[in-house]
Amino acid sequence: MPVDYSPNQGLIGVPGSRWRLNTPALVLDLDALERNIDAMAAHCRTTGQALRPHAKSHKCTEIARRQKAAGALGTCCATIREAEVMVGAGVDGVLITSPVSSDPKIDRLMALHAANATLMVASDTPENVTALEAAAKARSVDHPLSVVVDFDVGTHRTGADGQEAVIALARQIDAADALRFAGVQAYYGHIQHIEAYDERKAAVAQEAARLKAVVAALNEAGLAPDIVTGGGTGTHDIDHREAVFSELQAGSYLFTDVQYNVCALTPDKPRPFEPSLFVHASVVNNVHDSHAIIDAGLKSFATDGPAPEFAAGTPIGATYRFFGDEHGAVVYGDANERLDVGAQVACVVPHCDPTVNLYDVYHCVRGDTLVEIWPIEARGNP
Amino acid sequence: MPVDYSPNQGLIGVPGSRWRLNTPALVLDLDALERNIDAMAAHCRTTGQALRPHAKSHKCTEIARRQKAAGALGTCCATIREAEVMVGAGVDGVLITSPVSSDPKIDRLMALHAANATLMVASDTPENVTALEAAAKARSVDHPLSVVVDFDVGTHRTGADGQEAVIALARQIDAADALRFAGVQAYYGHIQHIEAYDERKAAVAQEAARLKAVVAALNEAGLAPDIVTGGGTGTHDIDHREAVFSELQAGSYLFTDVQYNVCALTPDKPRPFEPSLFVHASVVNNVHDSHAIIDAGLKSFATDGPAPEFAAGTPIGATYRFFGDEHGAVVYGDANERLDVGAQVACVVPHCDPTVNLYDVYHCVRGDTLVEIWPIEARGNP
Repeated sequence: MPVDYSPNQGLIGVPGSRWRLNTPALVLDLDALERNIDAMAAHCRTTGQALRPHAKSHKCTEIARRQKAAGALGTCCATIREAEVMVGAGVDGVLITSPVSSDPKIDRLMALHAANATLMVASDTPENVTALEAAAKARSVDHPLSVVVDFDVGTHRTGADGQEAVIALARQIDAADALRFAGVQAYYGHIQHIEAYDERKAAVAQEAARLKAVVAALNEAGLAPDIVTGGGTGTHDIDHREAVFSELQAGSYLFTDVQYNVCALTPDKPRPFEPSLFVHASVVNNVHDSHAIIDAGLKSFATDGPAPEFAAGTPIGATYRFFGDEHGAVVYGDANERLDVGAQVACVVPHCDPTVNLYDVYHCVRGDTLVEIWPIEARGNP
Repeated sequence: MPVDYSPNQGLIGVPGSRWRLNTPALVLDLDALERNIDAMAAHCRTTGQALRPHAKSHKCTEIARRQKAAGALGTCCATIREAEVMVGAGVDGVLITSPVSSDPKIDRLMALHAANATLMVASDTPENVTALEAAAKARSVDHPLSVVVDFDVGTHRTGADGQEAVIALARQIDAADALRFAGVQAYYGHIQHIEAYDERKAAVAQEAARLKAVVAALNEAGLAPDIVTGGGTGTHDIDHREAVFSELQAGSYLFTDVQYNVCALTPDKPRPFEPSLFVHASVVNNVHDSHAIIDAGLKSFATDGPAPEFAAGTPIGATYRFFGDEHGAVVYGDANERLDVGAQVACVVPHCDPTVNLYDVYHCVRGDTLVEIWPIEARGNP
């Protein structure tokens, strides 16, 4: 869906325009984004892991293309809509990491499968494999649909439960003419945000041992996985030490939100990535001694994680407080402060993925200048 | 912004299509919606209050038109984008209830003001009135911009602080050639969700006394307000008893989310409205004894209020738990339950306004049939 509306279009290229945006606006610092893309690409070159970064964080074809240009294999997608947008834009190597389970979405998956031979999808139940097989057979495409078995490594969300279930699914896929067994997926969702590196490493070790056993059993059964895929930003500098994943699915490293900014991501360099994504807001009301009101609230930030943190425009020590659907408060640290009505402030985004999903466009800046506006084509449902 | 993409378009008119949607999907029960619209319209006819319902809840021109057809004066908007969409669709009587404080948005306000003489806007600081006056003067439109003074009745969000501040702002507006003093706005945001009717009524009484004093003082100063506007769904059967508002801004009554569904809204009929808005989701994984996984999570529901509640498709006693960006859990009440992969469930939306903001369209149903798809034109930022 092309974005056909942005009140900030006229500000592109105007010096200082970053601070004169219609707000609330999602602002992407391209210099920081590029440093983050390069840092993860360099990390993967060093460790020998491939990178198939997750588009559920950014939902934007321009970013997926830039990640591929820096060496990524393709892109992971969480939803069929993300996959449609990415495949439609010519991005090869799409892996849909959430099982596609309902009939209407399996129909859409089959249209993508017919259009692109590099598409892969995760599956985690025998019913779902049966449904995928029937649909792929009915479609009679000249290439099989590549399916990876999703293995539950302790998050208890998606994934087959235990080694035997994984082997059985791999056999079922391998036996289906219209499907190809492509490998195994495992995602430690519950481990990514453990703040201390050593604690996170210990938690990974336990689940990685189970994953290694599954891979060994698959090899023994003559079902050698082509790929073993998983991992995230939180475990990117742990996964390669376990030497089990062939490729990494990290996504949030692009933006480095408030949540990840407090995680010690590597043993030697706690912050290998930097915040690149901000919400800019304007002061609406300044009549209170304790706080100012800005125009970004529950509809402008994800609310499931920590609060947004101020990056610019506010007095030192000020903290953000949600104040209804449309508003937030800049709570002053010092009673002598007061912001001007109309002044603009910038916040580091709290949980990045659901924050991005609220916006239609990225306002891309270099320094203080708006330089481009990128549509977030894959936002929204279903 | 017209919606040019819906994977459910082909299901319109197909019997039973409500339960075969691509999910997560926002589903609007038109029979329930119409009963809610009629019930509030009848309430306002009985009490003699006018109704200018709030579009921040629904963000949809079709719904605003239906409310007007049922007798509403116009529509309230929280953002300049909502106002642009409503005015653009020919909806007269728009009142922007949040002060428009930054220069880029004041420019857009002036374009709307030039296009529509019935537009009104709230203001709450002398700086903002000065900015509105300068902009309206520069625009030299043949009608003045109507401005209501927003009075803080205890929420401490927007609004002028105290009676003297209100009188001063009214005088400032009245003295400006390009502006017209249109009245007073007061919104008890902090009171709307008090669950017990009598407690909510007592809380209103205290603030209503302050508002009455402000109105009396304005009359005495020769600044009689044309309108006194405020109130919400939570106080709709309290406000008229205080006889101070000339018009009501309620919005959530359309949908009656989980939050409002536990409020005793009137003394004699605790639930005068009914849930009309649902999120439908599909089962992705059923391998766990304790819960099934569905495809609606942090990106499909507002997370600031209570959890979603199941309305259909799940075993009795099942509860919703958030499980990451794309998923939720149906936590079984009884260990012997298990849902089928691909099965569809329906949830009453938690906090309605920020949930609606996540979606591009309403899937409108009558009974079990999808009958129309309405775009949510004013969602998103900025």
